[in-house]
Amino acid sequence: METFILSGSDVATYSPMTDVVPAVEDAFAAYETDAVEMPAKSYVDVPTGDFRSMPAFVGADSWEAAGVKWVSVHPDNPGTHDLPTVLGVMVYSDPATGLPLAIMDGTELTMRRTGAAAAVATDHLAVADATSMGFVGAGVQSYAQLKAVSTVRPIEEVVVSDPDDDRVEQFVDTFADEFSVRPGDVGDAAACDVLSTVTPVEDPIVSAADLGGRTHVNAIGADAPGKRELAADVINTAKLVIDDHEQCIHSGEINVPWSEGLIDESDIDAELGEIVTGQRDGRVAVDGVTVFDSTGLAIQDVAAAHIVYEAARDGDVEAFDFFA
Amino acid sequence: METFILSGSDVATYSPMTDVVPAVEDAFAAYETDAVEMPAKSYVDVPTGDFRSMPAFVGADSWEAAGVKWVSVHPDNPGTHDLPTVLGVMVYSDPATGLPLAIMDGTELTMRRTGAAAAVATDHLAVADATSMGFVGAGVQSYAQLKAVSTVRPIEEVVVSDPDDDRVEQFVDTFADEFSVRPGDVGDAAACDVLSTVTPVEDPIVSAADLGGRTHVNAIGADAPGKRELAADVINTAKLVIDDHEQCIHSGEINVPWSEGLIDESDIDAELGEIVTGQRDGRVAVDGVTVFDSTGLAIQDVAAAHIVYEAARDGDVEAFDFFA
Repeated sequence: METFILSGSDVATYSPMTDVVPAVEDAFAAYETDAVEMPAKSYVDVPTGDFRSMPAFVGADSWEAAGVKWVSVHPDNPGTHDLPTVLGVMVYSDPATGLPLAIMDGTELTMRRTGAAAAVATDHLAVADATSMGFVGAGVQSYAQLKAVSTVRPIEEVVVSDPDDDRVEQFVDTFADEFSVRPGDVGDAAACDVLSTVTPVEDPIVSAADLGGRTHVNAIGADAPGKRELAADVINTAKLVIDDHEQCIHSGEINVPWSEGLIDESDIDAELGEIVTGQRDGRVAVDGVTVFDSTGLAIQDVAAAHIVYEAARDGDVEAFDFFA
Repeated sequence: METFILSGSDVATYSPMTDVVPAVEDAFAAYETDAVEMPAKSYVDVPTGDFRSMPAFVGADSWEAAGVKWVSVHPDNPGTHDLPTVLGVMVYSDPATGLPLAIMDGTELTMRRTGAAAAVATDHLAVADATSMGFVGAGVQSYAQLKAVSTVRPIEEVVVSDPDDDRVEQFVDTFADEFSVRPGDVGDAAACDVLSTVTPVEDPIVSAADLGGRTHVNAIGADAPGKRELAADVINTAKLVIDDHEQCIHSGEINVPWSEGLIDESDIDAELGEIVTGQRDGRVAVDGVTVFDSTGLAIQDVAAAHIVYEAARDGDVEAFDFFA
């Protein structure tokens, strides 16, 4: 009984966004119909950082999958150990028997499933003919955002804003063959039909005046209390869609205005799963700016791991017998 | 940056009980001095069973370690899939950086760390000159119990009781060269200096009359509400030591009498960690029967995985680069 052992490049190879985006959409639908099991993340604090275990089961209409992602955050890693801040491993298991079917790099998996969630939101919330996409922040997640979102909208024009010129240049070079891509300031990026903000800031860097009248914003960067990328005038006026209530008010884009009492339940228009399942509307004619607050759910990891495993079965990958 | 990938036989090879028992003792000491992080187990129910994620950090005096065990329980596995009921994988990580140092079979690891906890308890609770050990139940865990306990007491005579004659014969054959080992009934086993009960029963099978006057009992089998192996007259009169309060009253040997109100806080003499750290006494002159209620803690897994990893570094094992 063999278990696939999959590196980050294996995960990238076996997770085409054309498959991961629908799988993550299935997971959000299953979440809203109580066809998932997802205990709260467990945090394990250690002297130099923390670990989080994120277990889940997804019983989607046409597939089911289970697993746990074990992910660590060590802020001093880049400076002290020449390692990334965030590292992770995913154990993907057969729900029917418990067998570990695959163990894979969780860092690349997180990239993919985070991009995919933004694509699902964009599919339901961006204008139908969205052809331009902006980025505030040109780190690794911006790449996943573009790859994923461009599977759901005919993106042609891309504008990237980042204070680090090298990162901008690298981003432009990477995508120059596929898109009309250029550097710009925050306002240039935010005026696009779709904007993804992917920065770790605590002071908002995008205000309502920066945005186009019908821009859809994927707010990706905030992942801890105190972080936010969007000014209060965006949150207060946009149609606001979240991935998960508990996680978003704790550590998502809305955690600061929520904790300050500037917004409440009535300001949240929907969970993404409610839109996917048709319980709430996506973009309608009267909508202006829309915002998706993405914190990242364990069910997204399981959905993406499901795609990787299924594709890897047809590939040439390492396998190991744990029960030997 | 390579991660060791270790099968069940690798885990067995690299976890000598002479090392695992002291490491598990260190973990119980750390637990009692708040030098561990151990969130409650998370349960993920699936249609045919469940998964549990068990993350922990142990900051022992001379070592530190972190990891998560992902373990599944599928009762129909043996009959339907020719697979064990319980399967598991452990991800063992460097607390300082989060790097996954090793991924190992969690099934064998569970065997070892469970045996080791019984040995720690036996070391503190059995009579000093214990030379005989009995077993009620001759399944795989009984093997680990004997291997572990015989590192802390000079066991010579072994008595094994099990309704399955084949299992008894296999046990006897396995240990015939090391011990004077013979089959017996429950009373023969329970009269020994040390007894380990390792059965999944719900109706008690060992009563006070079966036990020797100063027998130490490791009650291992109960792992879910409704299960118990020891009659009320044992629990009511023995010196009662538990591994963890919350887990024991929920699913340990004492869960039934506790839920029925037959015992309360005053019947619990100590947590094992309190004895290890000297806050409470182990066996003293006046003690008769002692009982250790073992449910199994995530810190035991981390401690055992620490031993496996350290030993495997000097061995010839598979390694994999997840970040390639």
